[in-house]
Amino acid sequence: QIVDEIVKLMEKAPAAEESGSLSGRRVLITAGPTREPLDPVRYLTNHSTGKMGYAIASAAAAMGAETKLVSGPVELGAPSGVTRIDVETAQEMFEAVMSDLNFDIIIMTAAVADYRPKAVASQKIKKVEGDLALELTRNPDILYEVGKVKNKQILIGFAAETEKVLEHAEAKLRKKNLDMIVANDVTVKGAGFGSDTNVVTFITADGEQTAYDQMGKADVAKAILKKAVSLLP
Amino acid sequence: QIVDEIVKLMEKAPAAEESGSLSGRRVLITAGPTREPLDPVRYLTNHSTGKMGYAIASAAAAMGAETKLVSGPVELGAPSGVTRIDVETAQEMFEAVMSDLNFDIIIMTAAVADYRPKAVASQKIKKVEGDLALELTRNPDILYEVGKVKNKQILIGFAAETEKVLEHAEAKLRKKNLDMIVANDVTVKGAGFGSDTNVVTFITADGEQTAYDQMGKADVAKAILKKAVSLLP
Repeated sequence: QIVDEIVKLMEKAPAAEESGSLSGRRVLITAGPTREPLDPVRYLTNHSTGKMGYAIASAAAAMGAETKLVSGPVELGAPSGVTRIDVETAQEMFEAVMSDLNFDIIIMTAAVADYRPKAVASQKIKKVEGDLALELTRNPDILYEVGKVKNKQILIGFAAETEKVLEHAEAKLRKKNLDMIVANDVTVKGAGFGSDTNVVTFITADGEQTAYDQMGKADVAKAILKKAVSLLP
Repeated sequence: QIVDEIVKLMEKAPAAEESGSLSGRRVLITAGPTREPLDPVRYLTNHSTGKMGYAIASAAAAMGAETKLVSGPVELGAPSGVTRIDVETAQEMFEAVMSDLNFDIIIMTAAVADYRPKAVASQKIKKVEGDLALELTRNPDILYEVGKVKNKQILIGFAAETEKVLEHAEAKLRKKNLDMIVANDVTVKGAGFGSDTNVVTFITADGEQTAYDQMGKADVAKAILKKAVSLLP
């Protein structure tokens, strides 16, 4: 009986190697969407729910890392042991990330808006007849800016694509100077926004591709962190 | 002791008059924001959380009405006794509402997007350098269209404003042929989107204005329905 209990406990606990494999390491994660206001009422956003990033933050903390999570507006609570910084816009996320890049591993899962309305109205815009052209301007490309200045950090990005998934993902890996990119086709069932599962392919800077079957996001998180640990200098 | 208990129960129960005041009546409520897609990933939306509309639906059902709730994407569960129809876009909400207007009271709390992107890309739009003009086109004005065809229905709209609140609200009441409009200044503390309270002024078609202090949304809901009952033919 007692032996059974001990065996069960050992099965539940992460492997010793895994549980301590990020001790003394600092991990930064971004998660969720950003919101880009047009006026006090309306905004541009996207379907990211933050689940993937929060799963990684939770796993990183469980593996012993000092974990910081810069999060756009989501419906999730901060995982235990994680320092969460809340932001709304891409510009706020950019500033929160660039303020401290002294991390061993940086994993950017946030779906940052590429564009924001050029002018933000201070009052609710009244509608007019007919069409309207909304002037958009580019947001800072956070992943690109971190890739440009990083030295020892392992930098991992995500590519949520709807077509030519691996091609787009590998181009992004090169352009942003990443160590690894996690590609997923958000049109695939069980891989899209809000899903509790994901279907991913890892592409590393040396060109290695590893495709996974559908997994729970907690398992995807562990696989990403395990790979990140193997890439540490 | 027993008397005390009975007194307590009587205090909790709605007044007999209130609880049955919508028996045999049909009430339609719209709630929440709409989402207007740019592509499979990005969309335009607003800060509506649906709390006000869901509170009205819940109160209408409790008052004995056959209650239909046409709801944009929100984080709330359907109130008990309410038939909920889920929609995403303004066009979908328009169709769901116009398909059946045989109601005694129609209360439109939804924050319907006035505009949608003119073209919806079937694949994720890749970003380009520099600025971008997003072509927007007008969505159907659901409140206006219902106001145009209504006969005996009591039609109630909301005006969530950030300036000249009563002026904008009264203009909307006239333009949309409403029986009553509920005006609120979303910049006021305790009256904005996502709040559990609201600070409202009722304006009826005969020009009567009734301003309320800050109330919980359940109490605002009851006040609206009580006023709606008094306006029934």
